Order: sequence, then C-alpha cells, then structure tokens
Amino acid sequence: MIVRSRRLGRRRLGRWSGVLAGWLAIASAGAQESPQAPPLQVPAKSVPVPADVSPQMAKIIGAPLRSNWNIHPKTGEEWKPVAEAGAAALGKLVPGMLERLKVKVERTTIDGVRAFILTPAEIPPENRDRLLVHVHGGCYVLNPGEAGLPEAIFMAGFGRFKVISVDYRMPPEAYYPAAHDDAMTVWKAATKMADPKKTAIFGTSAGGALTLAMVLRAKQEGLPLPAAIAPGTPMSDTTKVGDSFVTNAMLDNVLVSPDGFCDDGAKVYANGHDLKDPMLSPVYGDMHGFPPTILTTGTRDLLLSNTVRVHRRLRDAGVEAALQVGEGQSHAHYIRDDTAPETRKVFEEIAGFFDKHLGK
Amino acid sequence: MIVRSRRLGRRRLGRWSGVLAGWLAIASAGAQESPQAPPLQVPAKSVPVPADVSPQMAKIIGAPLRSNWNIHPKTGEEWKPVAEAGAAALGKLVPGMLERLKVKVERTTIDGVRAFILTPAEIPPENRDRLLVHVHGGCYVLNPGEAGLPEAIFMAGFGRFKVISVDYRMPPEAYYPAAHDDAMTVWKAATKMADPKKTAIFGTSAGGALTLAMVLRAKQEGLPLPAAIAPGTPMSDTTKVGDSFVTNAMLDNVLVSPDGFCDDGAKVYANGHDLKDPMLSPVYGDMHGFPPTILTTGTRDLLLSNTVRVHRRLRDAGVEAALQVGEGQSHAHYIRDDTAPETRKVFEEIAGFFDKHLGK
Repeated sequence: MIVRSRRLGRRRLGRWSGVLAGWLAIASAGAQESPQAPPLQVPAKSVPVPADVSPQMAKIIGAPLRSNWNIHPKTGEEWKPVAEAGAAALGKLVPGMLERLKVKVERTTIDGVRAFILTPAEIPPENRDRLLVHVHGGCYVLNPGEAGLPEAIFMAGFGRFKVISVDYRMPPEAYYPAAHDDAMTVWKAATKMADPKKTAIFGTSAGGALTLAMVLRAKQEGLPLPAAIAPGTPMSDTTKVGDSFVTNAMLDNVLVSPDGFCDDGAKVYANGHDLKDPMLSPVYGDMHGFPPTILTTGTRDLLLSNTVRVHRRLRDAGVEAALQVGEGQSHAHYIRDDTAPETRKVFEEIAGFFDKHLGK
Repeated sequence: MIVRSRRLGRRRLGRWSGVLAGWLAIASAGAQESPQAPPLQVPAKSVPVPADVSPQMAKIIGAPLRSNWNIHPKTGEEWKPVAEAGAAALGKLVPGMLERLKVKVERTTIDGVRAFILTPAEIPPENRDRLLVHVHGGCYVLNPGEAGLPEAIFMAGFGRFKVISVDYRMPPEAYYPAAHDDAMTVWKAATKMADPKKTAIFGTSAGGALTLAMVLRAKQEGLPLPAAIAPGTPMSDTTKVGDSFVTNAMLDNVLVSPDGFCDDGAKVYANGHDLKDPMLSPVYGDMHGFPPTILTTGTRDLLLSNTVRVHRRLRDAGVEAALQVGEGQSHAHYIRDDTAPETRKVFEEIAGFFDKHLGK
C-alpha cells in the first residue's frame, strides 16, 4: 500500500496545470479511444546531416534522394539494363575496395551455381577452418557479378574470414525460387567444405531476407544450420507492413519509398508467388531454433521497423539476437564506403559476434 | 584478381540505364561533394498507427501529440504546478498497476533521501539477495512521488526483483546536482544493503541519463559499480545533438520536439551548469569499465539517436551492450501500460539481462 505523505490536487495549480494531465491522459485513455486512431499529420521538415557522424558517412547521409527512385520496371527484361548499368558503375569501386582491404577474389561455380571466393591476405589461426557464406542485396534484381561483392569484401577484410559470395540467378534469367535455390545449393556445399559449427551466413537487404530464408529452408529440409547469421536490414516483409515504411519515407535516401523501385524488383522476382510466404517475408517464419543472429540497421532506414520486428521475433523464439543501429544512416549505408569508421565498426561488431559463436 | 567473364557497358542499356548509375554515384561522389550537404526537404506525411502492434500499444501510439507540448516554464516555481498536476493524474494509475503486478510499495527515507521500496509478492530464490535501484524520468522536473513509480512497478512485477525507487529532489526544491546527489546517496546505501555484484540500476529518459551519470560518478568517486544497468531511452545529450531530434520531431507523440517542454525542464534543473557536462549529457562520458548495459528505445522515439549513440559509445569502450527497439513506439511508450504485451516483453528482456549478469 502507498502511504501518501501529502495531499495533491487541492491547491491551486496555476497556468500549466492542464498540460501534463493532457499528456497523461494518453496513457489512460485506452478505453475511450477508437481502436483505429486517425493518422498523425506530420508536417514537412528540413533535415540536416547529423553533426555526430564521420565526414565519409556525412557525405553518404547528405546525398540527395536517389535519382529516379520511383521507376517501376515490371518485367525481368526491363530490369536487366538497370541492373547492368548499376553493376558497371559499382563494379568500378570493387578493385579499390579489394586493394584497401587486402582481399583476393576469384570466380568459381559451386555445383553449377556462380559464386566468388574471397580470401583475406592474412587469416588468423582461429579463422582458418571457418567459412562464411554471403548473399548480396539488390531487391532480387540488382547487383549481379562483382557488383554484389562490397559487403563480402568488407566482411573478409575487416573480419579476416574466408567468404563465399553467391552470384545467384535473378530475373530475367530466372525467377523465384531460383535465387533461393542457388543460395541453398551453395549452403549445402559449404557445409561439406567446413564444419557447419564453424560457418555463418550474412547478407544485406534482399540478402538479409535470403539469409533468414536460408535458415528457414535448412530447418525445413533437415540440413545443418550455420553457427550464426548476420542479416543486415533485411527485406523481411514485402507486404508493406512496418511503421518505418511510412515514417522514414522520403528520408531514407536509398530506398526512399515503400512504393519505389525496390518493391517492384521483389514483385518481379516473386513472379506471382505469395509475398507473405516466409521465403519472401521471413518475419512471418518460425524462428525457433535459429542460430545466434546479429542485425544491423540505421535510424533513417526504410527497413528500420522490419529489422527490429525480426529482432523481436527472434527474441520471442528464445534466440540470442543482437541489434546495432547506425546514427542517421539510411538503408544499407554501412556497405558503401570501407573508409568510413562507421563501416569498420559495423563489420568488426559482426566479426566479433561470429568469433563468439563459431567453433574454431 | 577478378576474372571478368563478360563485358558490361558495351550493349545498349535501354531506358532505365541511368537510374542505378545515379544511385551509385552517391557512393563514389565523396571527393566532389561539399562536406556540408544542404538539408533534405522531407514532405509532410500522414502516418497511420502501424498494423503490427497490440491493441493496447496501438492506442498509445495512436494518441495525438501531447497537448501543449510547447510550453516553456522557465523557473522551478513555474514547473511545480505542472509537475503536481501530472503527478496527480499519473498517481491514480499506480494502485491498479500495483494490484495487477502484485507489488507492494512503501515510502521510506534513505540517509535523508526520499525513496520507495517495492517488493513483489513472490521473489524467486535467485533474486532474494538481489537489489535494483530505480531513478524515474520526467525531464528532471516531473513525476515526483508516486508518479515516478510505474517503471519501478513494472520491473518489480515482471522481473520479480526488490526495487528501491529514488524520489529525488527536483526544482524548485533543489537544482543540479541535487537529483544526482540523492541518487548517489541511495546508491551508496544500496551497496551496503546488498553485494554490488547482485545489484543493478535502471531508469528511463532523465532516469536513463541519471543511470549513466551514476555509473560515471561511481567511477570517479571510487564507489562500487552495479553488475548491470538498463538506461531506457536516456536523455543522453541535452545539447540537441542527435539526428532523431529532427527526423522524429512531430512524430514522437510524447516529447514531440527538441524545442518542447522537456528541453526547458532540463535547463531549469541544470540551473546554468554546462549542459555538455557528462553528468547532464552522459553520451560524452568515458564509458570504459561500465557494467553490461541494456538500452531500450522505439522507432519513433525523439531520443532514438541518443539511445543508439550511447550503444555505440559503450561498444567502442568494449562494454557488453544490448539494444531493443520497439516498433512504432515514441519516447518511453513501454512504461505506459503494463497490460500491453510489448511492455511485458521489454521488462522480461531487461530482467533476463539482469539475471544473466547479476550474482545470485
């Protein structure tokens, strides 16, 4: 019981008295309020680059919205030139990344699937028997070939791990479940190349969703699971559920809008398949038995909600799950510039998580 | 070295070809761009309550902006009636919370400092020798007396811990460092009531900042540190640095704006003291040697950035630090309604973290 030492509410409260009562009414108003509150009208705002980020990250954050974010290619054939133009531009950045991070890369095929093998110049003893599998992002339609490599290079370089990066089939070459199948083919091979207890899977955006989907499929098919995973800002819900689809729209300078290009890319890949299938919206999958998971997102990320929703679902399933959120960062800003200290920290954090959970 | 298996860029790329190149230019444009990019102009938007939250949390999220969020009481005397009105309203909710969560509370004084002792109906064996210290929030000017108890009740009830909640002095009774001093007085007493290895400190908002400041002061003064802390959406930077001060302005329905009432409350308490002092902006404090820390925030929280910045600083200092982010939640929404499943999960997560790190 509370012993009240003084009487409140009897004295004259002055001009501010109603203020907090109004605030607090929010907490207790449950019963009176409509369950469907009207949308909040948020005014236009002018958003500067935050003061507390590195100069490199400030440039990435301060860039204007991606030009033509609202294109809507409707077929695999329409996506192909978009993907190729992007890959040509991004591919030019890859040699510098490889050089700075002292990583070698070679093309290969693994049981018929295109892939790259990335090897850091120096592999510390504890990582010699470890192997990571990477699935790149790009809305299931972008970043073919070398364009899918930056994140794999960062992981190999900052973490000093061997990495296999899957150059999975995309539209118009093939549609769902081709990318998933290719990733699983490589995963099966990887579990023979290394003890699964010494492996991990990682990827960002569509690659984050694929990372989660691969674990769901491995569970379904009775395959070994990796010892840890690192889905970065996963496209975990392609049905447009997730608060930050609205709150971070026109603020995230990469994805920009839930009705932008990326949504169309996923739909073209899905090719009519139910978007709510956990293979395409893994937030709805059964996460019991998942390996330890580290998630990465940013405060301006259009997929902030769909990253924290996965985190919550994993925790609900009793899975060890860590979350890192980059100040001011939009979708996947952390895989842009290996010279940004924020980038290094993200990958060192993931590497530390893997080091903790992978056998040696 | 990369072995290129095909030549890109020679074929006709079609109408989408410039799109991705534009996007990708962002990544490589560093050298050409001005270090101070112009602010991003984000248009007005209509933000519905997210679909993926409980009915209870939907009501909290769907509430309109706090009425009179832009009041600016400039003295302790002006704050007093505001605080008393709020406390009278919030105090009415406390008996129901105590009853539902089966927690008893009694007023006390500890070495001259007002406090409450909270005791759950049942204390499991592993918690019998453990003790938590709670510091309430309210911009250093609000939530006197019972109004500061909800979070302490939730922690005691969901976690089944004994809790001491500090009813620290606030303006106009006293100014900086009075609240800090009171909290430290109770902390010193707590370290004699229980083995510090079996204690933790927690609090939300100003209480989150106080939690961090208490560890900084304990380090400075050579006092024992708690075995873990749980600063919830800490007011870790009162100098207005932090991206979400802008990005979540007019979206967070509790704090609403960095220029709202809370900023004035902190300034009145500071009473001219440098706001950048880590005692008032603990994000600038030296976090080496901090105990394991679990931070809580929400995607719409005005202090989202200042929570994730603390997380990053802790990790940089080598501290074990966990982060949980509530979908769609504004500032401190998780300490509103104990019947919301989201609330229970937040406190169970913190309780699990404490259980892992506190001696038995």
